Amino acid sequence: MKIIQSVRWTDDGLGVRIIDQRLLPARLVERELRSLDDVTDAIRTLAVRGAPAIGIAGAMGLVAVLAPNAKQRRDTLLADARNAADAIRATRPTAVNLSWALERVLARASQADGDSAATIAAMRREATAILDEDREMCRRIGEHGVSLLRDGTRVLTHCNAGALATGGIGTALAPIYVAAERGITVEVFVDESRPLLQGSRLTAWELTRAGIPVTVLTDGMAASLMRERGIDLCVVGADRIAANGDVANKIGTYGLAIAARYHDVPFVVAAPTSTLDPSTKTGEEIIIEERGADEVRCIGGVATAPAGVDAYNPAFDVTPASLVSTIITDVGVHRPPYNFVSARTS
Amino acid sequence: MKIIQSVRWTDDGLGVRIIDQRLLPARLVERELRSLDDVTDAIRTLAVRGAPAIGIAGAMGLVAVLAPNAKQRRDTLLADARNAADAIRATRPTAVNLSWALERVLARASQADGDSAATIAAMRREATAILDEDREMCRRIGEHGVSLLRDGTRVLTHCNAGALATGGIGTALAPIYVAAERGITVEVFVDESRPLLQGSRLTAWELTRAGIPVTVLTDGMAASLMRERGIDLCVVGADRIAANGDVANKIGTYGLAIAARYHDVPFVVAAPTSTLDPSTKTGEEIIIEERGADEVRCIGGVATAPAGVDAYNPAFDVTPASLVSTIITDVGVHRPPYNFVSARTS
Repeated sequence: MKIIQSVRWTDDGLGVRIIDQRLLPARLVERELRSLDDVTDAIRTLAVRGAPAIGIAGAMGLVAVLAPNAKQRRDTLLADARNAADAIRATRPTAVNLSWALERVLARASQADGDSAATIAAMRREATAILDEDREMCRRIGEHGVSLLRDGTRVLTHCNAGALATGGIGTALAPIYVAAERGITVEVFVDESRPLLQGSRLTAWELTRAGIPVTVLTDGMAASLMRERGIDLCVVGADRIAANGDVANKIGTYGLAIAARYHDVPFVVAAPTSTLDPSTKTGEEIIIEERGADEVRCIGGVATAPAGVDAYNPAFDVTPASLVSTIITDVGVHRPPYNFVSARTS
Repeated sequence: MKIIQSVRWTDDGLGVRIIDQRLLPARLVERELRSLDDVTDAIRTLAVRGAPAIGIAGAMGLVAVLAPNAKQRRDTLLADARNAADAIRATRPTAVNLSWALERVLARASQADGDSAATIAAMRREATAILDEDREMCRRIGEHGVSLLRDGTRVLTHCNAGALATGGIGTALAPIYVAAERGITVEVFVDESRPLLQGSRLTAWELTRAGIPVTVLTDGMAASLMRERGIDLCVVGADRIAANGDVANKIGTYGLAIAARYHDVPFVVAAPTSTLDPSTKTGEEIIIEERGADEVRCIGGVATAPAGVDAYNPAFDVTPASLVSTIITDVGVHRPPYNFVSARTS
């Protein structure tokens, strides 16, 4: 099965190769990131997106930027590394994964023995480890989640929590990919996920490319789909999961969960344990970021609403734990009542 | 207050003047329809849309087409009228209002005394009566519905059941316009209503033009809006209402009704009595038309999903009466249990 790899090393091992997600689904273009501008531009302009993928691209990008510096004095290298990491971090200041991944690589650099070449090699191993760990984590989510799927299961998902968003086979899509590998044929439906259309643009694209049948629908059609055709399972990703199981995820998730409950359709959240945040007691504590009005007023640069009209544009919403049937993480399958009290793992 | 008039006679009284809804919200362009091609093109290409508005434009358009025939033999005029009506009817064969309005004008023609000029004058009076009756019907819906609104009421609507869709002040929007006329300030939110975006393109435009504050949102944001900001009332139109109160309306209505119920928000349907169909016992009997996949796969001609991917695109959905708090018609305010057994009125 051809599951795409959204971030990887270039063939010479020195640069980072990413799929430019801005051009999907119309064109598959890969870009090689080698300079600091390459890396910061790619992250800032959402050529690479999805919290895990951003962290990986940032960490690997930092190493790529320093590749020509192997003959530098080691203290100069470390200073350059910190400056480059600061510039990369500043492109998405609220992306926790990005900051965390950059810190891991910087810490490895300062602990490394030997000259600059050896330090860069150690940093490269650390960035590769971040990629490999994420890939493993996706795989484990898929293996835990596949137990929910059978031949003919009709799955509805929202947004993109797939291979494009991670270093591996995704989070919400991981069980679907594992099922496909095992010859279990599931039927996937995906909300287009306005305003940014990650469902129709990205999820539909990566599943189609992997040979998995997918049907797109607009967000307002999900309830009708459940009533008219029947859906066996909803599965979505998560941006943050509170200690009580309340789930912050892409806007539209909450309405989908309500419709699922009304139709007695199990509503499943699949996410890495790093998404569990025991310090957030309930979803009430989660501040919802509002984004610019033009994302709602326009589509692809074309105005779809009167100029200047007010718009409501929260980036995500909070689904109460009472609507979440199951939470799948890389460590297992969790059922209500949820009580995530252990420390955040990475 | 400046409420737009979507269909009216031209200044010389011989043609039909419509707002070209294809160009909204970017440009307000009015078109004069005088030839048969003008009329059939306008209806076929959705320059005029909304069941009542289509019926009115068809009836008035038929008269406009025959305006130059005042010196014709009367039997030739009647034959030409039937042919023209057939051509107009064929543009939207399933639009019940269009067929009904054309029949009214043809019946008046065949009953008229006098020569062709007198016959055309009688047809013009009939078409004007259809327009005036629709305008009155909208006004009565507004006057019944305004009882649900107070200063500061936050109303969420879907699609366009407004002035653009009717000869008057709309159906779902009629109570809002009447409230505004009486100095009652309501706050209106509107789903963009994918795939065809009648909410952001048309409802937001006509309310803004009338000076009524409106906020647009994508369809997947409605549940979050109810939870985060609070909505006091949802109000939508209807394509057909079964004897038991089940409501067929634009796709997305059903999901909105489920979200409203989950948040204890009253869900109100506003529609003319002509929409009540006692011969349809329940919504189960209503066949849901599926439209072309490209409406979902594209926006404004730009692909937003992989070429050729499957799409689910029902034109409307059915909301069960159990989710409908109130039905407002031109004859009054109806509460559950609904039991519409009287004959269909016009």
